[in-house]
Amino acid sequence: MKIDVTVTWQEAPSVDLRGRVAVLIDVLRATSTIVTALHAGAERVHPVATVEEGLAHAELHGRRNAILGGERGGLRIDGYDLGNSPREYTPFAVGGKTVILTTTNGTRAFAAAEHADAVVAMAFLNVGGIAEWLLQRRQDVTIICAGTEGRLSLDDFLCAGMLISRITMPGTDRELADGALAAADWYASHVGSTHAVLSTCFHGRRLAALGFEEDLAYCAAIDTVSTIPLRDGKALIRA
Amino acid sequence: MKIDVTVTWQEAPSVDLRGRVAVLIDVLRATSTIVTALHAGAERVHPVATVEEGLAHAELHGRRNAILGGERGGLRIDGYDLGNSPREYTPFAVGGKTVILTTTNGTRAFAAAEHADAVVAMAFLNVGGIAEWLLQRRQDVTIICAGTEGRLSLDDFLCAGMLISRITMPGTDRELADGALAAADWYASHVGSTHAVLSTCFHGRRLAALGFEEDLAYCAAIDTVSTIPLRDGKALIRA
Repeated sequence: MKIDVTVTWQEAPSVDLRGRVAVLIDVLRATSTIVTALHAGAERVHPVATVEEGLAHAELHGRRNAILGGERGGLRIDGYDLGNSPREYTPFAVGGKTVILTTTNGTRAFAAAEHADAVVAMAFLNVGGIAEWLLQRRQDVTIICAGTEGRLSLDDFLCAGMLISRITMPGTDRELADGALAAADWYASHVGSTHAVLSTCFHGRRLAALGFEEDLAYCAAIDTVSTIPLRDGKALIRA
Repeated sequence: MKIDVTVTWQEAPSVDLRGRVAVLIDVLRATSTIVTALHAGAERVHPVATVEEGLAHAELHGRRNAILGGERGGLRIDGYDLGNSPREYTPFAVGGKTVILTTTNGTRAFAAAEHADAVVAMAFLNVGGIAEWLLQRRQDVTIICAGTEGRLSLDDFLCAGMLISRITMPGTDRELADGALAAADWYASHVGSTHAVLSTCFHGRRLAALGFEEDLAYCAAIDTVSTIPLRDGKALIRA
């Protein structure tokens, strides 16, 4: 199994994703939200690139069956039902609904993975479930970190490293590309520091300044759910 | 002093480089070659993007005063005097001459840094000299790793981390962006492993397969020269 990592979604077009599984990571907060929404009973999560596209999709699905969620600059969008705080995505809010989600970064990462054989969304919340799923699937893996503003983001980089540690047990046949080695080593020197890393990285500090400290604690929890958000057409459903 | 790192040159346009110093790193082999050529007495090194541009520049400078160097796919270009092996850039070959250099990656990294206040080229060979120069200059720094094929390359990432370790002594006022923290930590867990990293990283293995093992040993040497290649117009000269 070959494993590589892109540190931003902008890097993904450099990778030939055909024949590979793409694992998308945007810990703060798009993939934490997607995992939470599907675990809470949302039928599907439909990532869209723009605010207007989201509104148009909601009309198409029927406004009563759709939940519009997302952020710009970290904050809820005018006319949308929910922001991008995963804690808003409760069974009461999203159970049985289609969630239409637009975030600055995470939904673009989804588009960047389009040529992969399969696409799953991961956060610390479901890293164990994803690891197990990948070990059963036995395909080459590209981990696409969303990054922040086109740059490496330590929240995503740490999560990538944690996944690699779960799927590269000694004695297994693994080939790690340079980015995967860097992420795995960086994780190895930060085991047990998930909340600390989320609180001190650039993106985490920005969210804290906007009043989202509790989201950092929520997103730092590991293996709380086993939901695997899997691409199905242009949306994500429970695998 | 703020310090950040891009893991590829393609990331550089995301950074506002105005008011900052850009440190370019392409250990294998463009910046190792640039440092070596200037140390060997070349008047200047003129990076160009294309093979044709190099030939046109050589005519302009007068073919007798110019040395055409560079590579495509790691190998010397037809009609060029030298390849991209730093060991070819001896005082006999390049003393007093203008070196016109085109490499797959390194010369593009130079173009990507154009908005920086100052640009210097760094490799393991001159990391100490660069660190001293930056400490005197006291400006914010963006370290631009060239990367390989648009991806993180461990040779450059290690060199970035080594530089950061040299300019962030305890008690100094430093602000490290996420990428800089990742590089510094990765370096800290690989101190003393420069040659091993260069031999095992993707780019190093490819060069070894092309017969350039000795270049890896040459490029892994630390602080062998104090030359600072500094941007002067569209070329690099000794600072």
